[in-house]
Amino acid sequence: MKKSMGARTLVYPTPVFVICTYDDEGNPNAMTAAWGGICCSSPPCVAVSLRKATYTYSSLLAKKAFTLNVPSENYIKEADYFGLVSGKKENKFAHTGLTPVKSDLVDAPYIKEFPVNLECKIINVLEIGLHTQFIGEVLDAKIDDTLQEKGDHPLIEQIKPLIFAPESRGYHVVGKQIAQAFAIGNDT
Amino acid sequence: MKKSMGARTLVYPTPVFVICTYDDEGNPNAMTAAWGGICCSSPPCVAVSLRKATYTYSSLLAKKAFTLNVPSENYIKEADYFGLVSGKKENKFAHTGLTPVKSDLVDAPYIKEFPVNLECKIINVLEIGLHTQFIGEVLDAKIDDTLQEKGDHPLIEQIKPLIFAPESRGYHVVGKQIAQAFAIGNDT
Repeated sequence: MKKSMGARTLVYPTPVFVICTYDDEGNPNAMTAAWGGICCSSPPCVAVSLRKATYTYSSLLAKKAFTLNVPSENYIKEADYFGLVSGKKENKFAHTGLTPVKSDLVDAPYIKEFPVNLECKIINVLEIGLHTQFIGEVLDAKIDDTLQEKGDHPLIEQIKPLIFAPESRGYHVVGKQIAQAFAIGNDT
Repeated sequence: MKKSMGARTLVYPTPVFVICTYDDEGNPNAMTAAWGGICCSSPPCVAVSLRKATYTYSSLLAKKAFTLNVPSENYIKEADYFGLVSGKKENKFAHTGLTPVKSDLVDAPYIKEFPVNLECKIINVLEIGLHTQFIGEVLDAKIDDTLQEKGDHPLIEQIKPLIFAPESRGYHVVGKQIAQAFAIGNDT
């Protein structure tokens, strides 16, 4: 039997992304966002949603650019901190000691210590309600060169990204691989 | 050091959603999508992207509705199959034996056997490129009443959702909880 839970975003899993921008004075800022994901393969695009009340919001509108940074589980404290505090009040890079690197492609910094960084040019802004959705075209994806690759991509087991469980607000790690996509379904 | 990987959606993790619709003849159909996520808390909205070439695409435009269904790892074969085959050619519900339940709220079916089902009314369609993004407002979220709840939400440990790793195309399970969000960041 099904139980109605009301109009809520009970979606599992959600990611943990850190969105970086420069503010009006050119200071780097970072905020955590779990509302987002890939939205197009060609051109390669990602979508992230955030509230107008955030300091990052006006930076996104002004710079038309951001980076999407995937924290590894080693940086769980920093990733959570970026979502706890406003860049209006604190210099989050100075507080955490993480390193902002100026992108050559877009007017935004990325986080050197995080294993995956996407440099994105904003191509669409949609006011939905409490959240505004920003779609960024990925101009380049950068990874740590210490990550082992298989074919032409890094291994999720080495990236060690975080998962956010809405409502319970728990951070989880990625568990073991149990099957190969576009393959196991042939057994049905 | 960073290594440039080119303009690609190297995003970790991505979810595994099964999107259900009715076609022109009222037949239920299901397809798998990993490009998507939550995009607004109020109104509660989810975004999913799919290619125009899919059978689901025209159903979404015609019905202005879909359900987003979260498969548990027990249904990994069915979830993968829904992404392998077109509803133009096969009745995927008949093939898998899964049960389509007509939503009372939107003109779309949901999957009885999956633990979480969101009934969504489409409020925005954006042609991006290869993929089109559909934003659905969640009118109701339903869960299996066998799921234990904590407070007013189900536990991700019981839902057992899947994670998709882009590029390697592996399905992973959700691993253990390692911290509480909006808390551990206070330790930085």
